[in-house]
Amino acid sequence: MTTTVATPLQPTDRTTVRRGKDRAATDREILHEVLRAGMICHLGVLMGDAPMVLPTAYGLDLDRGPDGTIYLHGSVAARSVVAAPDQTICVTVTHLDGLVLARSAFHHSVNYRSAVIYGVPRLVVDADEKLHGLTRIVDHLVPGRSHGTRAPNRKELAATAVLALDLTEASVKLRAEGANDEEVDLDLPHWAGVIPLRLVADTPITNPDCDLLVPAHIRTRSHTLGAPSDD
Amino acid sequence: MTTTVATPLQPTDRTTVRRGKDRAATDREILHEVLRAGMICHLGVLMGDAPMVLPTAYGLDLDRGPDGTIYLHGSVAARSVVAAPDQTICVTVTHLDGLVLARSAFHHSVNYRSAVIYGVPRLVVDADEKLHGLTRIVDHLVPGRSHGTRAPNRKELAATAVLALDLTEASVKLRAEGANDEEVDLDLPHWAGVIPLRLVADTPITNPDCDLLVPAHIRTRSHTLGAPSDD
Repeated sequence: MTTTVATPLQPTDRTTVRRGKDRAATDREILHEVLRAGMICHLGVLMGDAPMVLPTAYGLDLDRGPDGTIYLHGSVAARSVVAAPDQTICVTVTHLDGLVLARSAFHHSVNYRSAVIYGVPRLVVDADEKLHGLTRIVDHLVPGRSHGTRAPNRKELAATAVLALDLTEASVKLRAEGANDEEVDLDLPHWAGVIPLRLVADTPITNPDCDLLVPAHIRTRSHTLGAPSDD
Repeated sequence: MTTTVATPLQPTDRTTVRRGKDRAATDREILHEVLRAGMICHLGVLMGDAPMVLPTAYGLDLDRGPDGTIYLHGSVAARSVVAAPDQTICVTVTHLDGLVLARSAFHHSVNYRSAVIYGVPRLVVDADEKLHGLTRIVDHLVPGRSHGTRAPNRKELAATAVLALDLTEASVKLRAEGANDEEVDLDLPHWAGVIPLRLVADTPITNPDCDLLVPAHIRTRSHTLGAPSDD
């Protein structure tokens, strides 16, 4: 697997990938692809003396700030969101693409794409940017969804927290190949290969209290994610 | 969605789920199901003054220790593994089960199952337990795989780090239902429902340097994960 380095990220000591440097794709385009393809991130926040790692939804605005912005969704009551704006947080988006089965246990691995972003996030307080961030989060899950839903009212906006984090200190790492066994193991009577994995959608399920047809933006999203065509 | 509470976990202040208490399924059986079904976890470790969140493979031994043990895989060169044994870490396993599209942007959500475990891990130094932990990690990815691969030799064992963490301080949270809109929004002309998501396997890909048939344990695993039957 080769990756071209187009626009290098700005790795710090933290985001310099020390292990498997050949897997560190310091390419901002690949970072964007990994983030675009993901649906949830894992947010790491220091709570007291221990890290807390929780999944949350996110959205992107790659044109905001010098390196683009990731918006993170939270409740204002969530401890992680309360603690986050005062500290460096870590946001990780991982795609598991396959199980790599080698002839030796040692060379078992997984194929994956992973983006890691560090920074001190801003708690978004400006009403316009907050709405913008929430729109990006909803449209990240289903492109076009923000036009097919009721926008948040003032009370809902007040109950929602949005964190903004610059995509400046980031790294992306991936593995996308077969099993790499030792030369001496190649003739062992053990199978080697990959079980490919992917996240797929099934046919959308309309709410029992809804009698509307599944709209185009929902069908498009589920088909893009591999759901069988039903029309 | 209802969950029965059979064997309560031992929640501390950290693992008491404050938001959405109705979604906190404090049931050890559900914790085990979530962990069994997962393939990678996100490991949170404090590095300097910031949390680092990285994906890694894991295995389970639910009979070891009072509450069972999760084994985490690492290279001895990985910074996260070097730092972890001296501190409380956080291990999170998340399944994304669906996108929940409500009539209002505010009530958009995801269906998911998530397990969070805290504790100070042991760096496994005993050779027998290290081999045991690695076997559990390999067999977690593909049940039976440890019998279809070459066991690690001394050099490989020395290059591999295994962390053991008790499943004592743990919480599990899930959402598994349709969109929950405000009563006043039910007649809005916006579709509400769920796009179900699942991780599926495709047909195993044999390594170019391997001329063996795909063995039964690999076929079973890929079929269990939804790959089409090819025999």
